[in-house]
Amino acid sequence: MRPELDPKVTETVIDLARRAKTAARRIAHLSTDDKNQALQVIADLLAGQQDQILAANRRDLQAARTLVQSGRMTEALYHRLELDNKKFAGIIAGVKQIQALADPVGRTTLENEIAQNLRLYRVTCPIGVIAVIFESRPDALVQISALALKSGNAVLLKGGSEAENSNRALFDCIHRAAVSAGMPADAMSLLESRSDVEALLGASGLVDLIIPRGSNSLVRYIQENTTIPVLGHAEGICHIYVDRSADLEQVLEIIIDAKTSYPSVCNAVETVLIHSDVAASFLPRLVNALQVRGVEVRCDERGVNDFGLTGVSSATDADWRTEYCDLILSIRVVDSIDQAIDHINTYGSHHTDAIITREDAAFDQFFAEVDSAGVYLNASTRFADGYRYGFGAEVGISTGKLHPRGPVGLEGLVTYKYKLVGAGHTVTNYTGPAGGTVKHEPEEDRTGD
Amino acid sequence: MRPELDPKVTETVIDLARRAKTAARRIAHLSTDDKNQALQVIADLLAGQQDQILAANRRDLQAARTLVQSGRMTEALYHRLELDNKKFAGIIAGVKQIQALADPVGRTTLENEIAQNLRLYRVTCPIGVIAVIFESRPDALVQISALALKSGNAVLLKGGSEAENSNRALFDCIHRAAVSAGMPADAMSLLESRSDVEALLGASGLVDLIIPRGSNSLVRYIQENTTIPVLGHAEGICHIYVDRSADLEQVLEIIIDAKTSYPSVCNAVETVLIHSDVAASFLPRLVNALQVRGVEVRCDERGVNDFGLTGVSSATDADWRTEYCDLILSIRVVDSIDQAIDHINTYGSHHTDAIITREDAAFDQFFAEVDSAGVYLNASTRFADGYRYGFGAEVGISTGKLHPRGPVGLEGLVTYKYKLVGAGHTVTNYTGPAGGTVKHEPEEDRTGD
Repeated sequence: MRPELDPKVTETVIDLARRAKTAARRIAHLSTDDKNQALQVIADLLAGQQDQILAANRRDLQAARTLVQSGRMTEALYHRLELDNKKFAGIIAGVKQIQALADPVGRTTLENEIAQNLRLYRVTCPIGVIAVIFESRPDALVQISALALKSGNAVLLKGGSEAENSNRALFDCIHRAAVSAGMPADAMSLLESRSDVEALLGASGLVDLIIPRGSNSLVRYIQENTTIPVLGHAEGICHIYVDRSADLEQVLEIIIDAKTSYPSVCNAVETVLIHSDVAASFLPRLVNALQVRGVEVRCDERGVNDFGLTGVSSATDADWRTEYCDLILSIRVVDSIDQAIDHINTYGSHHTDAIITREDAAFDQFFAEVDSAGVYLNASTRFADGYRYGFGAEVGISTGKLHPRGPVGLEGLVTYKYKLVGAGHTVTNYTGPAGGTVKHEPEEDRTGD
Repeated sequence: MRPELDPKVTETVIDLARRAKTAARRIAHLSTDDKNQALQVIADLLAGQQDQILAANRRDLQAARTLVQSGRMTEALYHRLELDNKKFAGIIAGVKQIQALADPVGRTTLENEIAQNLRLYRVTCPIGVIAVIFESRPDALVQISALALKSGNAVLLKGGSEAENSNRALFDCIHRAAVSAGMPADAMSLLESRSDVEALLGASGLVDLIIPRGSNSLVRYIQENTTIPVLGHAEGICHIYVDRSADLEQVLEIIIDAKTSYPSVCNAVETVLIHSDVAASFLPRLVNALQVRGVEVRCDERGVNDFGLTGVSSATDADWRTEYCDLILSIRVVDSIDQAIDHINTYGSHHTDAIITREDAAFDQFFAEVDSAGVYLNASTRFADGYRYGFGAEVGISTGKLHPRGPVGLEGLVTYKYKLVGAGHTVTNYTGPAGGTVKHEPEEDRTGD
């Protein structure tokens, strides 16, 4: 159930969105130099305002400490909220990194001469107005603002209330810097209340894309309550399939890394599928290595019964559909790569899945048939990350099937439009693509049935 | 309101969709040669079955003739339904044209070495299961089947009931040919009743994309009643803006072409915006040229009052939002290119809009700021068509903002997945993209907040 909207709040958000849409027109064709110059001014002003921003962050931390003590906030969340000198240096380095990336706007990705003097181009352009809803981490605000600016998009930012002071201090600094560098003031706005999110969800026609970064329930709520396209993913149920020809030393190292190096993130592995040919000799060793590292293992009945595992509970159908975000791993024994792919496409979340094998043919099949944004050979699922992909930064990871997919950096924030340049061309005199086969089809056999 | 679903119908459609999903796994990695060979067999069998297919079409035409006589079908629709020897030759030529196009699957669009021996690729792949709902034209069935096959997608086809016999004859022929060439039988299915469409709309998780080709009301109904992505457009409200520096001879020729060459299609112009500097001298001449060709002109108040137009009615706000699909054109006088862009972005449908100008700077601004899939210089909006763009064929025109956009041919029917190829790589030992700046960010500053 969506809460009732306060008409005044709605009006403010709609007004901000409308102004963002107007600003988006202008920043869509800023030069690369102008955008990079603004990013430089932002980085410089952030450095100059570090003390004030850290002071604002301390106010948030004070309130958060009380929440932690009363059990209403986890230590992990508290830690994400916290800014220190080292994190602050990372924030500024991140802005400079985005400044150094190639401009994703205005790239020609297709060119056709379709008649004499009539040229068609497909050219990348910004998406328009992007609303990003994020939780806890104030550094996300800087990264998103910088990505939006470089990709020529206007952005509406909605941070978590627990980071209110930090977000406002960071936003004021970035906004001031951007405006002083000639950016339109309405190209970035900060929203501060939960009811602003409700209003955003109804702003179709003004907001072109919503990117929720946060809990699964937040993402799902947004997906279910707006007709605006949503970029992101609710769950990350990642799999590793151990093929019969796998290098078993690699298997151990990869699975331990994928499960234990950071269990609460979306690219951690949740289910391991293991070929029955190697299960007998290897499964007890794998389970033991995981248990030694504090991992609770849940295994299908066959695994539990046939391979003498100890300290392992039974996995049910619900386990295959669960993102644990914890030191828990489910394991299933399969008899073929086909069965493994079936399992992944049935229970997975189309995020990132890996095969460990020494057979090229097995990977070829796995890559072609696993329907996920990332399909890996002999590597940890934890590589699913914009930074590790070399994208400089990311606004999120998309499990949608239409563009963009996977970690989304600058390129995922632009779409394209077709440019057609003529000299008075009309279709009445058009006979077919220049140089191509002239095949004049009857008009009604084409567009517009 | 959606009609109640017959559970039996739902079960059949869901079963077909499930089987299509299984088949999709296989056709996703067919070789180009295998797909082209199947297209050849399809073309050959169509040629061999021409008499039977035309006979089936005549049965549809008989029933349709009755509908036309009782006013329940237009002559235009009847004409679209009709197959003759010439159209049939065009259908077969269309299959061969798709056979000749490059395979859109398996193209590497990005490659990064992100650590030693760890390579990331972005590779195009099919979308999966596509459902296409089309009306009247039986030749669309052939075009869509051929595009789906070449792009490695499974397809569920739902044609109009008025073409039932033609569709079944064409489908049987294509299906038989495809299976004999080794394609999985479930890769293409024909749905035949309206209630099948209802069941399709609920098949999320099985169907990856719905493409409605038909009336605005059909498209809108589908968009509003499914959570499956929908590719297409409800309306085509295309504009031509006549800039103050336009070549007026070009203007006349382009506007007459864009309005009169085929008024009922989505890429016909509906509104002309004309700069006030040229309106005085040119507007009466333009209006007259249109009226002579049977076009009803509706003009804003200023146009009617200031420029001595005769036989012109007043355009209201509703006109700016209307796709006439008829020999009707609305005209508005504007004082600047900014006002023209405002109008287009406010009232348009993001389909195709053109500027007629001799100033490069004017087109640069128009191209950057008009938020449409096609933005043209000195050419008719009627060029918005997959055939004219050189795509060989199209499944539809997309006005969505995320990929695909504009006329959608083979390329729009594939997405990509990331391929990561390692040799046991774990993120624990990873320090940064190879050759890039090694900047080891704290783990929690990245994925998974």
